[in-house]
Amino acid sequence: MNIHADSPRTDETALPVVHLRRPRWGDPATPGELPAAAAALVGADGTERRGVAPDDVVLAEPQLPVDARSALVEALGEHHVIDDHRSRIDHTRGYSTPDILALRSGDGTDAPDVVVTPGSHDDVLRVLEICAEHRVAVVPFTGGTSVVGGLAPDRTGFAGVVTVDLARLDELVDIDEISRTATLQAGLRGVRAEELLRAKGYTLGHFPQSYAGAGIGGYAATRSAGQSSAGYGRFDDMVEGMVLATPRGTIALGAAPKSAAGPDLRHLVLGSEGVLGIITEVTVRVHPVPDHRVFEGWHFDDFDAGAAALRALAQDGPMPTVLRLSDEMETAINLADPDGAGGTDAAGPTGGCLAVIGVEGAHDEVEARHAAVTAVLERAGGVSMGEGPGESWRTGRFRAPYLRDPLLDAGVLVETLETVTYWSRLADLKVLVTAALTDTLTAAGTAPLVMCHISHVYPAGASLYFTVVCPQTDDPIAQWAAAKTAANDAIRAAGASITHHHAVGRDHRATYHAEIGDLALDALRAVKVALDPAGVCNPGILI
Amino acid sequence: MNIHADSPRTDETALPVVHLRRPRWGDPATPGELPAAAAALVGADGTERRGVAPDDVVLAEPQLPVDARSALVEALGEHHVIDDHRSRIDHTRGYSTPDILALRSGDGTDAPDVVVTPGSHDDVLRVLEICAEHRVAVVPFTGGTSVVGGLAPDRTGFAGVVTVDLARLDELVDIDEISRTATLQAGLRGVRAEELLRAKGYTLGHFPQSYAGAGIGGYAATRSAGQSSAGYGRFDDMVEGMVLATPRGTIALGAAPKSAAGPDLRHLVLGSEGVLGIITEVTVRVHPVPDHRVFEGWHFDDFDAGAAALRALAQDGPMPTVLRLSDEMETAINLADPDGAGGTDAAGPTGGCLAVIGVEGAHDEVEARHAAVTAVLERAGGVSMGEGPGESWRTGRFRAPYLRDPLLDAGVLVETLETVTYWSRLADLKVLVTAALTDTLTAAGTAPLVMCHISHVYPAGASLYFTVVCPQTDDPIAQWAAAKTAANDAIRAAGASITHHHAVGRDHRATYHAEIGDLALDALRAVKVALDPAGVCNPGILI
Repeated sequence: MNIHADSPRTDETALPVVHLRRPRWGDPATPGELPAAAAALVGADGTERRGVAPDDVVLAEPQLPVDARSALVEALGEHHVIDDHRSRIDHTRGYSTPDILALRSGDGTDAPDVVVTPGSHDDVLRVLEICAEHRVAVVPFTGGTSVVGGLAPDRTGFAGVVTVDLARLDELVDIDEISRTATLQAGLRGVRAEELLRAKGYTLGHFPQSYAGAGIGGYAATRSAGQSSAGYGRFDDMVEGMVLATPRGTIALGAAPKSAAGPDLRHLVLGSEGVLGIITEVTVRVHPVPDHRVFEGWHFDDFDAGAAALRALAQDGPMPTVLRLSDEMETAINLADPDGAGGTDAAGPTGGCLAVIGVEGAHDEVEARHAAVTAVLERAGGVSMGEGPGESWRTGRFRAPYLRDPLLDAGVLVETLETVTYWSRLADLKVLVTAALTDTLTAAGTAPLVMCHISHVYPAGASLYFTVVCPQTDDPIAQWAAAKTAANDAIRAAGASITHHHAVGRDHRATYHAEIGDLALDALRAVKVALDPAGVCNPGILI
Repeated sequence: MNIHADSPRTDETALPVVHLRRPRWGDPATPGELPAAAAALVGADGTERRGVAPDDVVLAEPQLPVDARSALVEALGEHHVIDDHRSRIDHTRGYSTPDILALRSGDGTDAPDVVVTPGSHDDVLRVLEICAEHRVAVVPFTGGTSVVGGLAPDRTGFAGVVTVDLARLDELVDIDEISRTATLQAGLRGVRAEELLRAKGYTLGHFPQSYAGAGIGGYAATRSAGQSSAGYGRFDDMVEGMVLATPRGTIALGAAPKSAAGPDLRHLVLGSEGVLGIITEVTVRVHPVPDHRVFEGWHFDDFDAGAAALRALAQDGPMPTVLRLSDEMETAINLADPDGAGGTDAAGPTGGCLAVIGVEGAHDEVEARHAAVTAVLERAGGVSMGEGPGESWRTGRFRAPYLRDPLLDAGVLVETLETVTYWSRLADLKVLVTAALTDTLTAAGTAPLVMCHISHVYPAGASLYFTVVCPQTDDPIAQWAAAKTAANDAIRAAGASITHHHAVGRDHRATYHAEIGDLALDALRAVKVALDPAGVCNPGILI
């Protein structure tokens, strides 16, 4: 599907820092527009459904105990304890399609009672202490872009919910140019972190599709993966050190890049989704800003052939910086739209599958690596479609989330999900998940288009990312819930992981528990009890 | 120092599977011999000190409760519950110099009461259950090569000590050729695992200096790093899946190569040193057997210049398969010995520092990578010394441990220690640790030679490995303890990690706790209580 029709093209160096305003995505100056092709594709009825305006969503009165509120005000100052309607709305849930649909339906039940904005690690410690004392649930918040319910704690048994927005923890603390590391405060948005690093000649190389909104703390807490993961790695691979504020005090990790001193406890904090405390600082590896890049489209006859080519690169090298493969359906829908990746620029064959590769770095190294990648792809049966489709993807890659709002407006349901498995099980997993989604939605009378791509590869396996589009029923939340449950069951039955880069939150909790088993879950819960005895940190999330 | 004078040369494909017989290292068919240069270097008094023979070490009667012993016999069979003198001796402590000196002094206090040899994962579960019931401490054992006291639990409060030797868990369970993974039972020795994999065309690429003795379970439990870590990674990087037997049951991890489903719990088991249970199976990445290799020596004017060259490769690539740098002292001692690495083959300059690089893989890829590595090293001021010193290092690299026994016999104290830090702190750390060792041993009247090398590099930092040689005092255990304490303090003061690849065991426990802090330690202890409520798993180790 074309993700950037008639909209300004964007680049990782040219995006504005956006404060997302619910329920719509992104920078209001670049609104999503509905490509004509999209609505026609799914046969939506065309009824405009914009739903309840945010200002009209009814919220319960803030429930916070008076003592807790006073203690927060005393700790942070009146300005940093916020409970106006709009601030509460803008910290309600995240950006999954069900989250957006819920807010559009006027459902404000998950709004926090108060939003606080601490200005330092010590402020965060104090907030946690106050909340533990008053048994108030605490939700950490950087960009607010969760798509798995990670910002919607279970408030049962708690005296209220405080969202800790880390927006004021927005400094580049230090760059160690010898070790090529940078220490970033957790509230820095990805876009702003990149801006600060580029000013010093460095890049983080982390560009998830949520890049316009997401922040450093969220990247770490959810084990985010960006579009350049082939070259720069996943976020959890980039982290050298972390500072975690817990209700019982501070944990600082990362005495050395690698060590054999016990288990690597950084991996206990990465992916902990706020249930052990709040990450306030992250030390990450950085790279010199690339001075050269080549992005290209490649044609493969079918998905299996393309996947084999990606596997050859992942196992025997060399790795490009960006490496992705659309299946036949995703490729066809891109090609059907004149502005889509692989569209007018593509003089190449129609049908088959489109792969995009990008190589970035120093000029000579890029030229050499690009030549070696080309040789591997050609040996695997790929045919270059030139730079057109590659550049088209590169410049439009942050626009996909902008498309969802106009589609929802037009009665089209669109949502994504993703998983990861070993190479030997990838083809079966794709078939099973596609069938689960297709069968469930078809049975509901809303036959979907199910598209899939690989966007993250490893020597032993790869991710699968599905996009589902179909007409909405009268209850699109229930409609999607049934499809999602069927997909989760298929993923579990195939022995794959419930998430490659969207995390667990509340939405994946049951499937996650089945994935890791009771005893591993006990171990994780024991860690939570040790660090958060009152259980106030993001209750109901993950564990 | 020359590590292979007059001894057969060895290769990772030609080593025998060795069952180490305490206290001496390695294959009895290839005994270590004392290079003349070594004794002269340190001015030892020449008195022969072979110590008490293993058969003459006095052991306490086995303490195991009768009921516990019967239950073990019932579970495993009489043949697999062993308490003869020699078996107990061969499972006493590990292979640090203090461990060897203790046994040579006739100290058998850490001998297990019984050695059991379970034949399956379920057997291991049953042993853990029995030991938990009878409050008997359990020590997991694969190769028995710990150099940090990892096999010497604190038996205070326990009814006995059972060593669980996994020797019968020695199968290559499965190879997934599509995903390039192999599932190995934990009792497989490294040498045997490599033999089984090579028969199928694959290599694990993990060659620690303990390779002759160490096993798969130990690699995982201690986060081992091998000499080819530049190319194949550390052991903890190679692991995709693990099965852990705990007193409360089984944990199986690794649904996918990478995931965002909560914290990566594989990293809680890797490095857990037997305190959470016993690893019975590990799934690792494997690689096609390389068909081509180039090993070379390179000269750098000084350590800083050499370290800068290694950093350039680690940060901007390409990485060779093996990458190491000896400091001026280690280089001089190698060059002083005619058979040493950099010895007679080296027509190159004397003085300065010797780096060894090795590139392995498919022929054309090796040629291209070698050319690119050469360009980086030359730009950094390196001068190639040709393949002689590289091959000399490669073929002799598993012989160093053989040298220690004859040195100890001759009254020479020799021991090693290692650490890791960020590149920006590496030079300072080297100075501080060298001074701590030199000052302490000089004050004892035994001025040492302190040599150092870098053998593991990462984008953000590198390891430092120190070898210390000096004459023994009358109490060499106390002599080394003082030096080691001073070195540990220096490492901690420099903010580095207490170990890069030797683990924590009992010897590093206090420094480790200072490194991670009280709260992180609480979290780890909570995991232990969750999985091992009776606390029988390797008590006194790590936590």
